[in-house]
Amino acid sequence: MPWYQLDDASDPRLDELASQYDLHPLHIEDARTKDESVKVDTAPHYTFAVFKPVRLEPDPDNPGEQMLAFSPIDIFAGKDFLITISDPTCPTTHQALERARRDGDDEHPGKLVYLILDTIVDLYFPAIDHFDDRIDQLEDKVFDGPSPEILQSVFAIKRELIDLRRVLVNTRDASLHLQRDPNTIIDTDHQPYVRDTYDHIARLLDSVETQRDLLNNTLDIYLSSVANRTNEVMKVLTVLGTIALPALAISGIYGMNLKGLPFEDSPHGAEWVGGITVLATAVLLYALRKLKWL
Amino acid sequence: MPWYQLDDASDPRLDELASQYDLHPLHIEDARTKDESVKVDTAPHYTFAVFKPVRLEPDPDNPGEQMLAFSPIDIFAGKDFLITISDPTCPTTHQALERARRDGDDEHPGKLVYLILDTIVDLYFPAIDHFDDRIDQLEDKVFDGPSPEILQSVFAIKRELIDLRRVLVNTRDASLHLQRDPNTIIDTDHQPYVRDTYDHIARLLDSVETQRDLLNNTLDIYLSSVANRTNEVMKVLTVLGTIALPALAISGIYGMNLKGLPFEDSPHGAEWVGGITVLATAVLLYALRKLKWL
Amino acid sequence: MPWYQLDDASDPRLDELASQYDLHPLHIEDARTKDESVKVDTAPHYTFAVFKPVRLEPDPDNPGEQMLAFSPIDIFAGKDFLITISDPTCPTTHQALERARRDGDDEHPGKLVYLILDTIVDLYFPAIDHFDDRIDQLEDKVFDGPSPEILQSVFAIKRELIDLRRVLVNTRDASLHLQRDPNTIIDTDHQPYVRDTYDHIARLLDSVETQRDLLNNTLDIYLSSVANRTNEVMKVLTVLGTIALPALAISGIYGMNLKGLPFEDSPHGAEWVGGITVLATAVLLYALRKLKWL
Amino acid sequence: MPWYQLDDASDPRLDELASQYDLHPLHIEDARTKDESVKVDTAPHYTFAVFKPVRLEPDPDNPGEQMLAFSPIDIFAGKDFLITISDPTCPTTHQALERARRDGDDEHPGKLVYLILDTIVDLYFPAIDHFDDRIDQLEDKVFDGPSPEILQSVFAIKRELIDLRRVLVNTRDASLHLQRDPNTIIDTDHQPYVRDTYDHIARLLDSVETQRDLLNNTLDIYLSSVANRTNEVMKVLTVLGTIALPALAISGIYGMNLKGLPFEDSPHGAEWVGGITVLATAVLLYALRKLKWL
Amino acid sequence: MPWYQLDDASDPRLDELASQYDLHPLHIEDARTKDESVKVDTAPHYTFAVFKPVRLEPDPDNPGEQMLAFSPIDIFAGKDFLITISDPTCPTTHQALERARRDGDDEHPGKLVYLILDTIVDLYFPAIDHFDDRIDQLEDKVFDGPSPEILQSVFAIKRELIDLRRVLVNTRDASLHLQRDPNTIIDTDHQPYVRDTYDHIARLLDSVETQRDLLNNTLDIYLSSVANRTNEVMKVLTVLGTIALPALAISGIYGMNLKGLPFEDSPHGAEWVGGITVLATAVLLYALRKLKWL
Repeated sequence: MPWYQLDDASDPRLDELASQYDLHPLHIEDARTKDESVKVDTAPHYTFAVFKPVRLEPDPDNPGEQMLAFSPIDIFAGKDFLITISDPTCPTTHQALERARRDGDDEHPGKLVYLILDTIVDLYFPAIDHFDDRIDQLEDKVFDGPSPEILQSVFAIKRELIDLRRVLVNTRDASLHLQRDPNTIIDTDHQPYVRDTYDHIARLLDSVETQRDLLNNTLDIYLSSVANRTNEVMKVLTVLGTIALPALAISGIYGMNLKGLPFEDSPHGAEWVGGITVLATAVLLYALRKLKWL
Repeated sequence: MPWYQLDDASDPRLDELASQYDLHPLHIEDARTKDESVKVDTAPHYTFAVFKPVRLEPDPDNPGEQMLAFSPIDIFAGKDFLITISDPTCPTTHQALERARRDGDDEHPGKLVYLILDTIVDLYFPAIDHFDDRIDQLEDKVFDGPSPEILQSVFAIKRELIDLRRVLVNTRDASLHLQRDPNTIIDTDHQPYVRDTYDHIARLLDSVETQRDLLNNTLDIYLSSVANRTNEVMKVLTVLGTIALPALAISGIYGMNLKGLPFEDSPHGAEWVGGITVLATAVLLYALRKLKWL
Repeated sequence: MPWYQLDDASDPRLDELASQYDLHPLHIEDARTKDESVKVDTAPHYTFAVFKPVRLEPDPDNPGEQMLAFSPIDIFAGKDFLITISDPTCPTTHQALERARRDGDDEHPGKLVYLILDTIVDLYFPAIDHFDDRIDQLEDKVFDGPSPEILQSVFAIKRELIDLRRVLVNTRDASLHLQRDPNTIIDTDHQPYVRDTYDHIARLLDSVETQRDLLNNTLDIYLSSVANRTNEVMKVLTVLGTIALPALAISGIYGMNLKGLPFEDSPHGAEWVGGITVLATAVLLYALRKLKWL
Repeated sequence: MPWYQLDDASDPRLDELASQYDLHPLHIEDARTKDESVKVDTAPHYTFAVFKPVRLEPDPDNPGEQMLAFSPIDIFAGKDFLITISDPTCPTTHQALERARRDGDDEHPGKLVYLILDTIVDLYFPAIDHFDDRIDQLEDKVFDGPSPEILQSVFAIKRELIDLRRVLVNTRDASLHLQRDPNTIIDTDHQPYVRDTYDHIARLLDSVETQRDLLNNTLDIYLSSVANRTNEVMKVLTVLGTIALPALAISGIYGMNLKGLPFEDSPHGAEWVGGITVLATAVLLYALRKLKWL
Repeated sequence: MPWYQLDDASDPRLDELASQYDLHPLHIEDARTKDESVKVDTAPHYTFAVFKPVRLEPDPDNPGEQMLAFSPIDIFAGKDFLITISDPTCPTTHQALERARRDGDDEHPGKLVYLILDTIVDLYFPAIDHFDDRIDQLEDKVFDGPSPEILQSVFAIKRELIDLRRVLVNTRDASLHLQRDPNTIIDTDHQPYVRDTYDHIARLLDSVETQRDLLNNTLDIYLSSVANRTNEVMKVLTVLGTIALPALAISGIYGMNLKGLPFEDSPHGAEWVGGITVLATAVLLYALRKLKWL
């Protein structure tokens, strides 16, 4: 059974294969669309599948951080032919095709499709783990002290999770389609394997939901921390004002060009007034504390 | 097969066509309603469809910005006739009808309907891209500094997305109806094409959902930025108060008309007291910093 | 075919009609319940329907504003009789019964029921438009400046929308029941008309959902405006404090009864010190601006 | 037909009845569980039902307030026997059993079950009305002025509504089970009555949902009122600061021990300086108002 | 009937049993995966089940607190064999296996599976009660005074509930699978028992949902308490400022080196000015109170 591997959907050889194996023009158009979405479509004599393997690569915007990148793989699987179109530089795709070549055999194109899908799904797990680590770090950081950078990271991860979730939902629907459609290339022997892959995707989606919950928690922690800190700063300001008040008021009074103030002519006037000021401050602070205002 | 193109549903020729081809009064009423909604309805001998092509046009309220505008197209497609009613000034409708005239043929009114629908759906993508750009700009702006204008833009886009989403949901239901209904004008050959269009609408709706999520993120960023800034301003106020406090208190004390203050008669009294004031301020700032209050 | 119109369900004639046409006791009980909910129930030999026409009437709590009011109409429609019970002072009910009398005929009680339902549903649209206007006004007002009155209006409209939504959901279910139930009074000819009414209710519900979204937007705008204004007021306070600080500190210093201050004995001391104060204030404001604290 | 009424599920007579009528051990276990949940379960020869009648009783934590209390009733209804287990001190249960004894008859155990369920469901309405009153009061109070006590009441009602909603959802499912299950004790004649009860429960659940919405509104009003008041207090502080500023700055300047100040030696110096101070304050307040900062 | 109990899935004896009883390689792989999820899968000649018993153990991060821990149990149940793989140190698993050994019999492997599942499900209730206690404590604490530690506990419990909910949802699906699948090991006699267990899990899930609601309430209380306290502190600051203002302004005025001030030369000047200051302060406080600004 021939297996054609093309590196690029714009390759003119795809047109030749399309006419040789009677591939539907819509599928060829899909394969050549930039930003195509994951799906499985069954024609009477072959199955067309698009998957989106994920890989982690350095984030150009945040040095030291990694980001998700997807490069689609297109598969045309007939009874007696297999055409795969994939970016040869993507390590995830490379690994998937290697495993299919090693463990598959020519008699069962369905098994080859399963092996490729299974490897792709297994390689989503490191991406999920990567998010787990980053969310854990963010949560620790936000308890130490909220900063706008943390917020930016929270929203960046939210954005990546939105994308990952969309790919996973489509992959889940595609694997269900592979399982259920009677026309599909997957034979009865391999149905339990595809169902197992389906379970894995369901678990991945579960994890993504959990991570969205955790990110929302982090955001709530952030907002309540900021509210808390504003509250703390206000209290400091109030304590400072409370300490300053008696000193300012009393020293203002004794600065007046008036007659008749107590201790005015006493030689220890400063000591007396100083003592009264300290006492008034202490009483004021104590009263605020008692009234639970501080 | 005759193709009647009317520019306005109030055209009396529509009444003539209605009696000639036995069109249902409810459909004629629908076509003449202002603000009709997208739908597909199948009568025994023809299919009635309303679509809402979108176009971008300058926003009168925000010079330099673009906004979405919809102008409905009504289609009556029978086995042996086609009636379209559409605003001739709308470029999207114009493009859809052009493509139908060029690629369709008289034998298959279903193909004509498909071609019109497909062009309309394809032209929703630039609208989505337009929102993507605006949301990206808003997100950048809000990280630079929150302002009420950003907020107003966020809510304006939310409003437009609510409208777009409603049109897309109805278009999706209409295309499903075209696919499933056994009475429909679409023959078996063109079913996969309509299914492909359905997939495109589903992808568009997915994007709209993502954009709503992103707008909510932007709103959260806005609110947390304002909270953060309030916190920052409070800290400035507290630092200023802290710097002022010792100077005010000590100078107040030495302004009192009392006897017995230290350095009162020293020739370098001002230097001593100035030094003590600076020292007290430094100690206070250091203490607040240590106690993590600033 | 006799048509009995009662103005009040407590009318004893209802009991006579109940025994004459064998009406189910539960239906009589329902008709006599205050605050009954919208529904359609089919007995073997007749159909019982409760609808809730809406009208706008002056709001006693907010002079100059209008509010929604509902007065239920009960319908017992058999093959050979029609009983309607409705408040004769409600203009919406009056209009619905007028239209049924004018356009209906004795042979088709189902058509009479359809005409009544259709008029009632059409008269929900002005209520929706009324909310659209009020929400638009609120949104404009909230951008001009948030006030507790706006908030009170937002929550009042939310409350009314909750009620309207409940009535519409029940009316939609009732119209579905009329369409689907094989026992129902509506014959095959009038099914498309009831389906059309169903579509109208679905569109009304869609509008209510949109309005709830818009109200939530208004609430978000309100809250972020208040946060923004607090932030603005804080900044004013900080600017005032910053302007006052050097003047207070320097004048305090020169108010001290100490020797050794510069310019103390200069004849132009006041000019020098004044100049230094203005300069210090300007430097401080400039520094805060540079550090992006204001 | 014998009707056994037990006051307590731990009564040993229940074991005798269980062996006499062959009751399933799981049902006996359920009846004896503390905090059992509402359900209907059908064995081949009898129907087992648990309902939770509600009553209002004084709240020990909040004198003057009432709270909900539930005491379960267990029913075993066979063709030729009825066993009820219920707390004899609960007035709701008492009323339900009274009505069953009065209006039911021995031939139809299904009617007895219906009468008990119907009375229990009818007596949920006063509980809902009770919440309506309390939520109305809270909403009025929160507009008068937010206080932590209001908040505590909001969350207390939320908690009670969570419990009530759970009981109602289970009761709705139980009544659906009574209606649909072919094995059930309810005969065809009484099906419409049970459906009517089902409608009542659906309306109750609708009211609970509305009340949850209204409580969330109250919470939003609370939070926005607090934000508003903080804003108000800030403005007062700023106005006070603005009024004080010129007086403090100018009096500070004239308190300096310097020469060369204007009006220094004028006999009406105090009047001049006082006038300038008042003027400066007025100009400052006017400027802030113009700039929309206050 | 042989019952094989393995303490660890990596035991080589599992491979022998796998070949002896023809166990599916995917099930063996699942049993050996770390972090496997709860499920029931039916092969033609046996049923494979994974459950996750819960236990409470001391939390290493929070001394004095307890946390949930799960250790999975794998079950292979055929007509004539039972293989269980479980951590022997987990008390919950131990209790489940003990009960199965005591109450089960060799003829019914289905009953053994039911007994294990039922014990596991019953032992989730103490975990739920544990959360109930902790949430009650947190709610009391948050009304006494909000602190970041409370927030940290709220989010820690949210995280644990997310995990527990996932396990329960999967256990519910697994028990439904045991009930419905015709291939399953559970015979008709034991179906009601498994349905009873299903009801218990549904009740557990209900409790988890309630607890999530209560935690969100606690978070709302926290945030509104912080907002309230900020408001309180602001008021204290404003009262202090109001009290200080007249004293500072008046004493500043009398500190000026100017002539023409009233009471300047009066021997009781200090008393007069003091009286005026106190009066001005009282009037100001009264005015703010009247204007509802405090």
